[in-house]
Amino acid sequence: MKKQVIATYLIETAYSLEHAAQVMAGEQSTGTFLALPGETEKIKQEHGAEIISIKEIETVSSPSLPGAKVPDGSIANYHRGEVILSFPYHNFGPSIPNLLATITGNLYELEEFSGLRLMDIDLPIDFTENYLGPQFGIEGTRSLTGVTERPIIGTIIKPNIGLKPEELRPLVRELALAGIDFIKDDEINGNPPFAPLKDRIKVVMEEIERAADITGKKTMYAFNITDDIENLHHNHDLVVEAGGNCVMVSINSIGYSGLSYLRKHSQVPIHGHRNQWGLMTRHPYLGIDFTAYQKLCRLVGVDHLHVNGLNSKFYDSNESVIKSVSDCLKPMFNGYEALPVLSSKQWAGQAPVTYEKLKTIDIMNIAGGGIHAHPSGPAAGFRSMIQGWEAAMAGIPLNKYAEKNQELKEALIKFGKG
Amino acid sequence: MKKQVIATYLIETAYSLEHAAQVMAGEQSTGTFLALPGETEKIKQEHGAEIISIKEIETVSSPSLPGAKVPDGSIANYHRGEVILSFPYHNFGPSIPNLLATITGNLYELEEFSGLRLMDIDLPIDFTENYLGPQFGIEGTRSLTGVTERPIIGTIIKPNIGLKPEELRPLVRELALAGIDFIKDDEINGNPPFAPLKDRIKVVMEEIERAADITGKKTMYAFNITDDIENLHHNHDLVVEAGGNCVMVSINSIGYSGLSYLRKHSQVPIHGHRNQWGLMTRHPYLGIDFTAYQKLCRLVGVDHLHVNGLNSKFYDSNESVIKSVSDCLKPMFNGYEALPVLSSKQWAGQAPVTYEKLKTIDIMNIAGGGIHAHPSGPAAGFRSMIQGWEAAMAGIPLNKYAEKNQELKEALIKFGKG
Repeated sequence: MKKQVIATYLIETAYSLEHAAQVMAGEQSTGTFLALPGETEKIKQEHGAEIISIKEIETVSSPSLPGAKVPDGSIANYHRGEVILSFPYHNFGPSIPNLLATITGNLYELEEFSGLRLMDIDLPIDFTENYLGPQFGIEGTRSLTGVTERPIIGTIIKPNIGLKPEELRPLVRELALAGIDFIKDDEINGNPPFAPLKDRIKVVMEEIERAADITGKKTMYAFNITDDIENLHHNHDLVVEAGGNCVMVSINSIGYSGLSYLRKHSQVPIHGHRNQWGLMTRHPYLGIDFTAYQKLCRLVGVDHLHVNGLNSKFYDSNESVIKSVSDCLKPMFNGYEALPVLSSKQWAGQAPVTYEKLKTIDIMNIAGGGIHAHPSGPAAGFRSMIQGWEAAMAGIPLNKYAEKNQELKEALIKFGKG
Repeated sequence: MKKQVIATYLIETAYSLEHAAQVMAGEQSTGTFLALPGETEKIKQEHGAEIISIKEIETVSSPSLPGAKVPDGSIANYHRGEVILSFPYHNFGPSIPNLLATITGNLYELEEFSGLRLMDIDLPIDFTENYLGPQFGIEGTRSLTGVTERPIIGTIIKPNIGLKPEELRPLVRELALAGIDFIKDDEINGNPPFAPLKDRIKVVMEEIERAADITGKKTMYAFNITDDIENLHHNHDLVVEAGGNCVMVSINSIGYSGLSYLRKHSQVPIHGHRNQWGLMTRHPYLGIDFTAYQKLCRLVGVDHLHVNGLNSKFYDSNESVIKSVSDCLKPMFNGYEALPVLSSKQWAGQAPVTYEKLKTIDIMNIAGGGIHAHPSGPAAGFRSMIQGWEAAMAGIPLNKYAEKNQELKEALIKFGKG
């Protein structure tokens, strides 16, 4: 059987779904707007995309996106449906950059469509010859942090931006001495002139190693090494040489291919931040769905992947977050699971609902304000998060568990409604 | 004065525009959802983003994007406006990957917004220390092709995909012998197993050199070298070693940073294809506007940039294409113009309207079907395009000019309505 890439789309069109699906298949394989001399039956057969299925969803009276054409003389009704196409693998080989030009490419701009979204992809295992997948994933991250029976609890350096390396020092010291599992730089704090990455690394690793000597536990710190391609390996090496054990990148700033370039060199887990993701996904009939996106991120080798959190400051619903977590944990090829990272407006009180909905502890739960703004300081904030999860996993109401756990009690008073 | 990056946005929100602008500035600089101990006035002053201006546009009754929050107890009215923010340059330095995390970042996902689009950016000249801009641009491309007094006329290899190297040979020979200015690979044809890039390069360059020996003119061929980062330099070198004088990449497959990585190594013009662009731009209240996008592409060093064509198969209006051409030709820093590439449904008959609307000949005009499907073959198709532009520039009606120009006449009969 021919090797294929299967791509699932949501579309909206004033044409018949059948016609629209044919336009998609033609545009992204052998077609143009005119029949051409060289376009033989043999070429079509060997290189043409095929329609696997078309499923009608509904008809609406106004278009989701502007600029769509309506067939001559017809009343504008816009048909929504799911279209599944199959593309011959040998049209691109194991190359994500070229895969993208084929399965997305010009589709979003075609005037036959008032909506088009890539929902899912199914890739042949041949892609794993070129893309290495998560090097550490869930088990490797658990092993490096020493956390086994609960979620990995982390925080973000706050304020987001502006701390000079020596101002960062006492904060990292306090968190590391409290035995926090994980700390990350903010995504807007990369390699700014006032706090260069190499100086941050020096200060942070000094504090982390010193705390580890005392506590016996080495906090994982995700340094934001996001930068131009030619600096990624160097930035990574600075972290590793200083004894660091995690790097973070803004995935969409460097692309899948930039991430793969880092992965092939990396010796530590890659913490994937998905800022800028909203621009690709927020309209339900445009862009890319998380299900397709996270497969590409995992294939190229992200170990941790941000998915927002329940009850966050972001637009997406809890259902969407739950689905995203489940996507990351669903095996692809022979595993390739990435650790889902829940963040935004997180604090101890979110643990019960998160555990109830997700039914897993294989997550990283990151709190910024929920740790830093704890009345007794960040170390107490971290302990309150642990206590919240202990209560959630044991099925004990937070108020009851707080009776004997002071940090949780303080968190409930400060961050809870009552 | 502090160096700043100025970013202009269109937003839509159920909150006041003032409140929404404050949320944007806080999220992307020093803020979080809680006041924090370390967030001093000094840090806010040195690192906070500032609101430059807010301009109300209109109020609408339904949101453009899902998931937006409405203030407690209010009736949902969505205010649209233009917001201009200023970000301290020293928050990121001359790094586009980190700039993006700041000026776009999480903004698209914030629940305060039912629409958000980056319209324009204004960068300090310091970015040019790290990003090299177009190496050849318009003048360099004219010099390499020897075309001075008219648009550069090109075509795309058709069928898009499926030709083996030896099947490509006669097509390239015919086009090169006809003295065509420019040929490009299709964007879906990268480095597929059945027609590897290195074999394509060999065949194509043999034919181009052989034709040049006869005609005295060396056709510019843009080889699609799109690939993973670690292959870009190698692919480029294969082209240059074979005597090729142009490379093409799918910009959005490798990212601005991947493009910059190629530019710093490149010895030939970079032909920038913007496939996948629709997913970032098609909704008017989401994503990125071309004005901002093309500045980043030019800064990192694209020489040619696709903008669709007038009356194309794509959704965007002629006004949008005209604006895009004008954007590419507007000086940035001390020049940095990129050659706008007009394609899709182009043929000889498009020249007059294109010239009338654009009022410039500093474009590349690419026809696929309009050249390949010409009744007398591709060489005649190319000549018909030249004749179309000659007529347009001289202000002579096409029908009249066709009386003495057979190829144009045939094109009008085949592709025109009459």
